[in-house]
Amino acid sequence: MSTAPACLSHSRVTITPALRAAVDRLDHRSRHQAAYHFGWITAGGAPVSADAGKAVRPALALLSAEAVGAPPEVALPGAVAVELVHNFSLVHDDLMDGDEERRHRRTVWKLWGSSSAILTGDALLALAQEVLLDTGLPTAAPAARLLARTTRHLIRGQVQDLAFEQRSHVTVEECVDMAAGKTGALLSASAAIGAVLAGAPEATVDALALYGDQVGVAFQLVDDVLGIWGDPAVTGKPVHSDLRSRKKSLPVSHALNQGGPLSDELAAWLTTPGEPDEEELRRVAGLIEGAGGRDWALAEAARRMALAEDALRGVELDAGARDELLALGRFVVDREV
Amino acid sequence: MSTAPACLSHSRVTITPALRAAVDRLDHRSRHQAAYHFGWITAGGAPVSADAGKAVRPALALLSAEAVGAPPEVALPGAVAVELVHNFSLVHDDLMDGDEERRHRRTVWKLWGSSSAILTGDALLALAQEVLLDTGLPTAAPAARLLARTTRHLIRGQVQDLAFEQRSHVTVEECVDMAAGKTGALLSASAAIGAVLAGAPEATVDALALYGDQVGVAFQLVDDVLGIWGDPAVTGKPVHSDLRSRKKSLPVSHALNQGGPLSDELAAWLTTPGEPDEEELRRVAGLIEGAGGRDWALAEAARRMALAEDALRGVELDAGARDELLALGRFVVDREV
Repeated sequence: MSTAPACLSHSRVTITPALRAAVDRLDHRSRHQAAYHFGWITAGGAPVSADAGKAVRPALALLSAEAVGAPPEVALPGAVAVELVHNFSLVHDDLMDGDEERRHRRTVWKLWGSSSAILTGDALLALAQEVLLDTGLPTAAPAARLLARTTRHLIRGQVQDLAFEQRSHVTVEECVDMAAGKTGALLSASAAIGAVLAGAPEATVDALALYGDQVGVAFQLVDDVLGIWGDPAVTGKPVHSDLRSRKKSLPVSHALNQGGPLSDELAAWLTTPGEPDEEELRRVAGLIEGAGGRDWALAEAARRMALAEDALRGVELDAGARDELLALGRFVVDREV
Repeated sequence: MSTAPACLSHSRVTITPALRAAVDRLDHRSRHQAAYHFGWITAGGAPVSADAGKAVRPALALLSAEAVGAPPEVALPGAVAVELVHNFSLVHDDLMDGDEERRHRRTVWKLWGSSSAILTGDALLALAQEVLLDTGLPTAAPAARLLARTTRHLIRGQVQDLAFEQRSHVTVEECVDMAAGKTGALLSASAAIGAVLAGAPEATVDALALYGDQVGVAFQLVDDVLGIWGDPAVTGKPVHSDLRSRKKSLPVSHALNQGGPLSDELAAWLTTPGEPDEEELRRVAGLIEGAGGRDWALAEAARRMALAEDALRGVELDAGARDELLALGRFVVDREV
């Protein structure tokens, strides 16, 4: 049985006081909107315990310190910082994508307008650096540097995502690069930041970062498969949800780039306007599957998970923390496909 | 004669190569939009030399290293970082304020849409930290910490600015606090960051920071006077421009908080809908002047400039650099009122 759910819930409990203390430094409005976004208060300000997300990134950060033999407290500012950067990107992405709900609650921009979402996101990003650098640890600077570079890659991924929507053709490499930016970069930084704060050797930090990168891309591959073929009862999203929006997800881009009649038919369909019905969506899902998009994505996810696990086995790490990291990676990626 | 114009143009020339190298690290789209915003290319991508702003913040950063006896090169990453943070805030503020032009060119959001402006601004903010931390200097961490805290205050100022628009009453203290956040915080960090990077003593850094803070608020007081009584030929803005938008600027908030019939009449006018004509604007400008708003703002600006100059005279600094800092502060604040 996986220890991952216990690890995630432990990580949520560990970081919440420090995360709340950090958010308390913000101006009145940004603090209120951030506290709402994190599920601590209602929009009106009453205390509540809403879903704050799985806390995968803070859990990776705490484990990465343990993996190099340091107490998890060393990683606490790193765990808070990666959670702040993740939520900066969620608040801004919800606005850019026009998403009105997150975790069954209205989004910040939907409740308070676009300027509020821009400013609250900006405040969370600046706060992430402040939390790290306030520690005064000699390792805070390399950790903050890692976080700044990671934020650049995260933004690149979102830029690509928006750009690809407007293009008729996207290569598989571009699609993987986007996933590496949007999902891999921050998981990678999360899995490495605890080790950076603990002053671990570069090779160990690199191995942990590689692990996070590969888990991130594997997660995205599986997520994209679920976006087409996932069971709505499991995913919580409508059937064929990514097809309805004609998203050039990883399985779609693989299928498109195969050449041949199935690819051509898929390419033509992607540029067709109008709301597709269920029968049409089933047919297109079949095209993608016929062109190998589903099998490729699942095989590629498995290959990347193997690379992730190899990375962790290639360096000396605390055995217990390594097992927890491996279990957490599998828990995040291996969902009901 | 002031040496400030030469100092500003020297600072622009000094930082541009490093600023361009930093922007070159961004993804293709953010790089293009940032290069356009900085005036290096046209919207289509052709090289150009458009107005890139006065470079006051980089000039302060370079002088603050010289003032503590360090070569200005020490401050270069700090000068680039404060310019990046300033432009992050301009790109986001233009979007939030709906401003379609900056320096006689269309704004980023106007040309490429709101998502592009959000992402390009985010990228500039993350890049500022990266540039500082990439130096590997032992003083990079305190400089990056200063910048992160400053960004929080900058955002607070913008949050207050937007909030005050929706409120009928704002105290003078709140208005000054907003100016300290929106204008003072980054000028303060700029005037201190070179000294921080040079490893100067805390008392010296604090004096430079105080200087920048006071110059920032003094600038805003004078800018607000010009926004009501400024000569359009000098300001480049329409006459009474801040009154047209019924902005609760510093002179307005002072006048409002005096009590008596002029304050009451002004308060009533501020909540009146409709487009005021020239005669009405002249009458309201007279109300504000009658309630002492103009005299107070100019006296307060002078008082703050004296405090700024006292701060620089209270610590040991290189005499030449101190004179340049004093001249630069006066140049920024003392415009044709």
